Amino acid sequence: MLILGIDPGYAIVGYGLIRYNAPRYAPVEFGAVVTRPEMPFEARLETIYDKITDIIERRRPDALSIERLYYANNAKTVIGVAEARGVILLAARKAGIPIYEYTPLQVKQAVTGYGQAVKGQVQEMTRRLLCLPERPKPDDTADALAMAICHAQNSTRTKLEVRTVIK
Amino acid sequence: MLILGIDPGYAIVGYGLIRYNAPRYAPVEFGAVVTRPEMPFEARLETIYDKITDIIERRRPDALSIERLYYANNAKTVIGVAEARGVILLAARKAGIPIYEYTPLQVKQAVTGYGQAVKGQVQEMTRRLLCLPERPKPDDTADALAMAICHAQNSTRTKLEVRTVIK
Repeated sequence: MLILGIDPGYAIVGYGLIRYNAPRYAPVEFGAVVTRPEMPFEARLETIYDKITDIIERRRPDALSIERLYYANNAKTVIGVAEARGVILLAARKAGIPIYEYTPLQVKQAVTGYGQAVKGQVQEMTRRLLCLPERPKPDDTADALAMAICHAQNSTRTKLEVRTVIK
Repeated sequence: MLILGIDPGYAIVGYGLIRYNAPRYAPVEFGAVVTRPEMPFEARLETIYDKITDIIERRRPDALSIERLYYANNAKTVIGVAEARGVILLAARKAGIPIYEYTPLQVKQAVTGYGQAVKGQVQEMTRRLLCLPERPKPDDTADALAMAICHAQNSTRTKLEVRTVIK
């Protein structure tokens, strides 16, 4: 199963594509789409849409895993982040990729087993699970890979639950 | 000058296209894109993107006039509205239409000459300026037409200021 994790934003969109063959995770491609503050905002949205579309079309992931946004997120940036998130959802929808949303709590629990885990701990566990030599940078990329791991674990859990019901 | 005004939302996107030959306004086309709550959210975004793209491609407006969003807007819906606004900005950008943003205060001042005007007054003045037999419905459509009038007035004001400077 190929999973694309995305940490939404308008200045930096972290992305991380992993292959999951339970119980193994393998990194496939990861990085960040960066847009410059001097660009018109709609040009930043277009860059994000085009780059995410490009990744989806090249790799054809089975699922998009993306952070759920809350009003409580940073007041100054949340509207811009939501606008960028809108075009990311559109890119996945246009390509027919199913979308899954997770909260930061769910991501922390999936990666470290502990909902109150600090950022460094989440990043370190992401590095270990993906057998990477060092923690991915920037943080947005590490967060995106953690999003992808979160969906991998949740998709397995769902399958196990179904199996239990059948038995 | 052909101006497309948009009142962004995800359940209802009001739109209003007007032709402006100073000092005359003429309505060209107006209505609303409505999406159903039972649709997956990304399908609602896609519907909005496709319908706005269709209007832009059929009519080729010279400008998009859209409401600026603030964090102070309704907490429950602002994230979804911003996500929808993101795909509307993307539709205009992809078609090469310049985008102008106005605050509700600017719209009220442009349409009624008074920044504290109540909603009914703005709608009534919108109806009169466009010589419509009755107030456009839903409110989102009336708001979109007011957005378009606001841009018409601001574009003229800019021209006059330039003329004054030259003199």
